[in-house]
Amino acid sequence: MNPIRVVQVGLGPIGQACVRVLSKKPGIELAGGVDIDPRKAGQDIGQVCGLDQDLGVAVRADLPGALSDWRPQVVVHTTLSFLDRVQHQLIDIIQAGACVVSSTEELFYPFQRDPAFCQRIDSLARQHGVALVGTGVNPGFAMDVLPLCLTSVCVRVEKITVTRIVDASKRRLPLQRKIGAGMSRTEFEERVTKGQFGHIGLRESAYAVMNALGWPVDEIEENIWPVLAETRVQTRFLTVEPEQVAGLHQVLLASSDGRERLALELRMAVGAQEDYDSVEIVGDPPLSVRINGGIFGDTATIGVLVNAVPRIIDAQPGLRTMVELPLPHASL
Amino acid sequence: MNPIRVVQVGLGPIGQACVRVLSKKPGIELAGGVDIDPRKAGQDIGQVCGLDQDLGVAVRADLPGALSDWRPQVVVHTTLSFLDRVQHQLIDIIQAGACVVSSTEELFYPFQRDPAFCQRIDSLARQHGVALVGTGVNPGFAMDVLPLCLTSVCVRVEKITVTRIVDASKRRLPLQRKIGAGMSRTEFEERVTKGQFGHIGLRESAYAVMNALGWPVDEIEENIWPVLAETRVQTRFLTVEPEQVAGLHQVLLASSDGRERLALELRMAVGAQEDYDSVEIVGDPPLSVRINGGIFGDTATIGVLVNAVPRIIDAQPGLRTMVELPLPHASL
Repeated sequence: MNPIRVVQVGLGPIGQACVRVLSKKPGIELAGGVDIDPRKAGQDIGQVCGLDQDLGVAVRADLPGALSDWRPQVVVHTTLSFLDRVQHQLIDIIQAGACVVSSTEELFYPFQRDPAFCQRIDSLARQHGVALVGTGVNPGFAMDVLPLCLTSVCVRVEKITVTRIVDASKRRLPLQRKIGAGMSRTEFEERVTKGQFGHIGLRESAYAVMNALGWPVDEIEENIWPVLAETRVQTRFLTVEPEQVAGLHQVLLASSDGRERLALELRMAVGAQEDYDSVEIVGDPPLSVRINGGIFGDTATIGVLVNAVPRIIDAQPGLRTMVELPLPHASL
Repeated sequence: MNPIRVVQVGLGPIGQACVRVLSKKPGIELAGGVDIDPRKAGQDIGQVCGLDQDLGVAVRADLPGALSDWRPQVVVHTTLSFLDRVQHQLIDIIQAGACVVSSTEELFYPFQRDPAFCQRIDSLARQHGVALVGTGVNPGFAMDVLPLCLTSVCVRVEKITVTRIVDASKRRLPLQRKIGAGMSRTEFEERVTKGQFGHIGLRESAYAVMNALGWPVDEIEENIWPVLAETRVQTRFLTVEPEQVAGLHQVLLASSDGRERLALELRMAVGAQEDYDSVEIVGDPPLSVRINGGIFGDTATIGVLVNAVPRIIDAQPGLRTMVELPLPHASL
């Protein structure tokens, strides 16, 4: 079998980690990398991504030109979280005839948030015979794909509760920043009020799960609270004083026909707490699943993205979801 | 959407439970049931299956005739464990133009055990434009689909260990019999030596997992030991005296290129033990997953079978596996 020709678009920490994995993976030919950062463009991609050797390909900043030169079959896309910010990138990639595996959180289940976007992108992708999918660990696995897979043994499902507790001390700096570590309580609350703060994707996970299970959503309530440090917390990257924000506590509740069906709870903070993921299904049979130590997101995100590459090539052209694609698994 | 027309073939405890669920499920039209037992044929299927009302359809014993009258789109097939015993039934069903969801353990991943069977059945199914799949909870979920789904977050997988501990006291009588509860140690060991004793499906799970992960199997070792009762155990159905067999302990180890990659351990016995399922993945990231209280097999098997019904209709014609089909989940 010919290797799959891949280009990495977006060379932040996640994109760099993808390159490190993709460049060593049998069955993958890494053709190049794209990033808008002028300090990266022109440098060897191996150097930009912290590999121990050059790969002989310079990072480029011009997406359409790079794609037209490199002609990838699949683009691994790790740039931004929001549909309106990535739309032009996705259009460039589709028009270059490449499939897309994207970490854009809002792309995991975009149908509720922006139906017009979905129709536009789906129709363009079909026209060019390529498929695209949004995925990752959250959204993409912990709060949607995994609980859905678990319900496959159930004759009846009453309610699903997913809890994800993350000790963000072990995670990369952008994540520690994203959860507000080191902010004052006031600053945190102002950011929440302004919007576009907090973890992106609970809503996408909720709609994907409710839709797959056939529960029409009649209400979704989402709240974010700060987790305050009780003692001084020192991470590799920053320090949080007592009473400053150590992280966030975010809860989504979704109901259907007046009954609460889904609760997604995320608590990500720096400092001492035991990492875990859990899924509790009230149903027949009931299920009580716990991932001790949690799913380590920094690596797991890379795993999900890279493992989706062979999957998206075989998918029907158009805008796909992880729920429609065959059972996801590692491919070594 | 029109309801899916389903016929249940095999009305043992599992088939009866399927009928109880299928007959009440929106989106399903239960057209009838088939069983070779002359005491069941001619009776109303609702009565045979312990429903509180008649369904107005008599159970039939003649498979081809019943299918030709009822014209199902999908057959839920729950008769026997072995390929050679179900082959003629599958052929009848395929020739009647119905898709098949089967609990036949050897059908979950039949490619290794009987390639000639697979070719015959696959080609016949394509010819008739129908798909078939073998599934269940074990094989079908606990030791294959679930661990594979978990690996989708892994950049690297070194080894997978799956453990399933079942307190068989809570399970149906055929299962208690199947695991040897109440036998003497000698009888148990004689049965093991003769073959076709013990849980069927570890091998199928192993080949499915190894194949999906791209590990060529170079050795599979499978052992069965009796679990002896320490004290008298009384279940709803039978009594086990001290030193008699309470159940079985079955372990499969699979290696690839000289490295042990997969361990499947099943311990099913009547009497006091804590039910659980666990999956341990050595890899990056590592994962340690535990289902407290286990997956209750009697109900979960029904869940998996019934939830596969809408899935198999949309599948490509031919002999399929749960790994190729879209992410399994409940459909309510």
